[in-house]
Amino acid sequence: MRIVDIVEKKRDGGELTRAEIEQLVLGYVKGEVPDYQVSAFLMAVVFRGMTDQETATLTDVMMASGDTVDLSSLPGIKVDKHSTGGVGDTTTLIVAPLVAACGGTVAKMSGRGLGHTGGTLDKLEAIPGVSIEQPMDAFMDMVRMNGLAVIGQSGNLVPADKKLYALRDVTGTIASIPLIASSVMSKKLAAGADAIVLDVKVGSGAFMHTVEEARKLASLMVRIGKKLHRRVEAVLTDMDQPLGLAVGNALEVQEAVNALSGLVGEEEPLMEVSLLLGERMLLLSDVAHSQEEARTMLLDALHSGRGLKKLRAMIEALGGDGSYIDANKISELCKVKQMVPVYPPKDGYLHALDAEKIGVASQMLGAGRAKKEDAIDPAVGLVLHKRVGDRLQTDEPFCTLYVNDSTQLKEAVALIEASMTIGEKQPEAKPLVFGIVKE
Amino acid sequence: MRIVDIVEKKRDGGELTRAEIEQLVLGYVKGEVPDYQVSAFLMAVVFRGMTDQETATLTDVMMASGDTVDLSSLPGIKVDKHSTGGVGDTTTLIVAPLVAACGGTVAKMSGRGLGHTGGTLDKLEAIPGVSIEQPMDAFMDMVRMNGLAVIGQSGNLVPADKKLYALRDVTGTIASIPLIASSVMSKKLAAGADAIVLDVKVGSGAFMHTVEEARKLASLMVRIGKKLHRRVEAVLTDMDQPLGLAVGNALEVQEAVNALSGLVGEEEPLMEVSLLLGERMLLLSDVAHSQEEARTMLLDALHSGRGLKKLRAMIEALGGDGSYIDANKISELCKVKQMVPVYPPKDGYLHALDAEKIGVASQMLGAGRAKKEDAIDPAVGLVLHKRVGDRLQTDEPFCTLYVNDSTQLKEAVALIEASMTIGEKQPEAKPLVFGIVKE
Repeated sequence: MRIVDIVEKKRDGGELTRAEIEQLVLGYVKGEVPDYQVSAFLMAVVFRGMTDQETATLTDVMMASGDTVDLSSLPGIKVDKHSTGGVGDTTTLIVAPLVAACGGTVAKMSGRGLGHTGGTLDKLEAIPGVSIEQPMDAFMDMVRMNGLAVIGQSGNLVPADKKLYALRDVTGTIASIPLIASSVMSKKLAAGADAIVLDVKVGSGAFMHTVEEARKLASLMVRIGKKLHRRVEAVLTDMDQPLGLAVGNALEVQEAVNALSGLVGEEEPLMEVSLLLGERMLLLSDVAHSQEEARTMLLDALHSGRGLKKLRAMIEALGGDGSYIDANKISELCKVKQMVPVYPPKDGYLHALDAEKIGVASQMLGAGRAKKEDAIDPAVGLVLHKRVGDRLQTDEPFCTLYVNDSTQLKEAVALIEASMTIGEKQPEAKPLVFGIVKE
Repeated sequence: MRIVDIVEKKRDGGELTRAEIEQLVLGYVKGEVPDYQVSAFLMAVVFRGMTDQETATLTDVMMASGDTVDLSSLPGIKVDKHSTGGVGDTTTLIVAPLVAACGGTVAKMSGRGLGHTGGTLDKLEAIPGVSIEQPMDAFMDMVRMNGLAVIGQSGNLVPADKKLYALRDVTGTIASIPLIASSVMSKKLAAGADAIVLDVKVGSGAFMHTVEEARKLASLMVRIGKKLHRRVEAVLTDMDQPLGLAVGNALEVQEAVNALSGLVGEEEPLMEVSLLLGERMLLLSDVAHSQEEARTMLLDALHSGRGLKKLRAMIEALGGDGSYIDANKISELCKVKQMVPVYPPKDGYLHALDAEKIGVASQMLGAGRAKKEDAIDPAVGLVLHKRVGDRLQTDEPFCTLYVNDSTQLKEAVALIEASMTIGEKQPEAKPLVFGIVKE
């Protein structure tokens, strides 16, 4: 079959076979199929979608396009978590140590942040000495010793996704549920975990702007995972405002350290989502057998300080200076030239907070990358003092910016002001968790 | 605006501005916008379409992307005709001389055949000595002297269409009414005629498979032409079988010479469409003032032999040997190594004849090009002996193949056999002309 025939088949709503998907995707990875045919195909998928079978096949073909990680020599059920991209979302640094402290096995390969969303690798690198590039045998040793490790993706994991994602980014073809699902799942499956808990974000700061869309994406990813013989569940959580109060790299590590030190209330969104994810991870990996049991185990790991110890052990295994994993010392990593308070433009109640704008503002200060090549400053970012539903007054800071380079400070402040929707009456509370998707 | 934003605007159903269309199309022509973004855009257009205003703007921007022809120094209203691609359609060689013989002015730039459709330039080149590449002043002189000239497109006429069409061809984005309309009209408008008669083909051998689609395309091209200040009309004609009986280059010239010699009945489809096009051309260029008057003029030009003389004059002006423009001599150009009759696979009535398959069979014999670079053999092709509605018998040839190179003969015969749909009862007659579109 000619490539143009495959493109036309999808354009006309046909279901592609495995041979056709392989010809297109593997040909593209090898450089035999030109990008202009692939981008036309991707746009046809945006309009026509893909069946479950096609999406599972695409995921499988992408996964097999490069190296895959074999975790089978590690004992027990290896569990991973993945978030579809959030702002102020440092759950990995909280939940992975807690799950490991409960006896779970967390072997995770993580990504860097791009655009307005943060990435776990950048947060880890905020700690002096940490090296996220680790050979596979060192990674396995870390998991064996501590029950957890989080490292960077190896060079040749899912090259098909790297090429396809870069092409989608510049051709208006990101917004497709089967393409998002196959991109996420191919990487998760290639990383070798037996069980995966997905946190699908909903709201202004996420790919999915409605609960309905998010549920579709979550359900599709769960079904793909099952077709490819993994245990997969998804939770749907709010990203209509940043999850935690800190946005930035060292600032988010500080928030995680505070959380694992018991300094963040269980009713805070960051803790609520972390504990929910932890419950699902313990249940999926057969460490706990009921939600209550899982919650009890997690709180015990939290309150006993065993979670914090696991985080410290993980950081030290990566070559990092573990002494910073202490609520009294971590703030040293957040020292900046100036701290700039931002005030609300008027009195009232905070009705909505555009998480994407907050993320971009933090990126402008140097906490994130606009392009892959950009360097980031681990210390900078911002800390929110208010959340949706809170009363705002023009003389009380809405947030504090942590600034070293003030080149784009004015734009960042303007963006933060524009991120707030302020009303006169207190808004009704909105749920943080929209559901758990098991099929 | 970034190119990806333009792609996303179209993907989401937005209407593009002139500035956006210029940025995309002119950027692509200059090599500044990569083809993978353009192909994603084109696929979005396949699904979302374009408004009349967008299509007219795209046409205008494409037209202005290269040279345009200024015919204003020639007297009268210059009239052009264009067919959307047919098989066995040699109307240009019949109607252009007839219209010129009636006092009309036909200044036409034509294209080569590609795939299953024939091209007027290839047919002209079947005559020894003809050179279709002519400088612009020679072209103008020919029109001034004979009232007609048909030459090849100059090098830099509508480069945007050349690049876009080549990209559409390999990305499954040919099948879009606004893209077809802007491609055709940008070339027609750049060629400088004041009045244009379009022959939009409907059926198995055409881009448009239904009358409804063809009417949409025709109406859109007429509206674009009017927006850009030209007189434009379209006729919708059948391409569910080849228009004439000859398919091939010298064979089609022979059929045109025969037609202009009065040897083809007026009731034959080829003559019926030629006379209809001639009527519209004479009316649009104010040479005739009623259909009856136009028909009388055309038949007079035909029966008096003035049409044939015009064709001969046109050929000689292009450097061709005019002595071949004679029904007794033209057959010398159709001499081949072997003439192979093809018989129907069973008795019955011919219900349908796939014009595309007939065109591809002729191409396989060497009459057409699969790729732009392919050489063609002017003498080869085929002549049909039966038309839809005729009685077939397995001992009477359905057609005769004119063969020099028999490498693909077997495949060509198989394709011709597959092109016939044979039924037991005589089918109902179908119309040849589906209507005239004036707005």
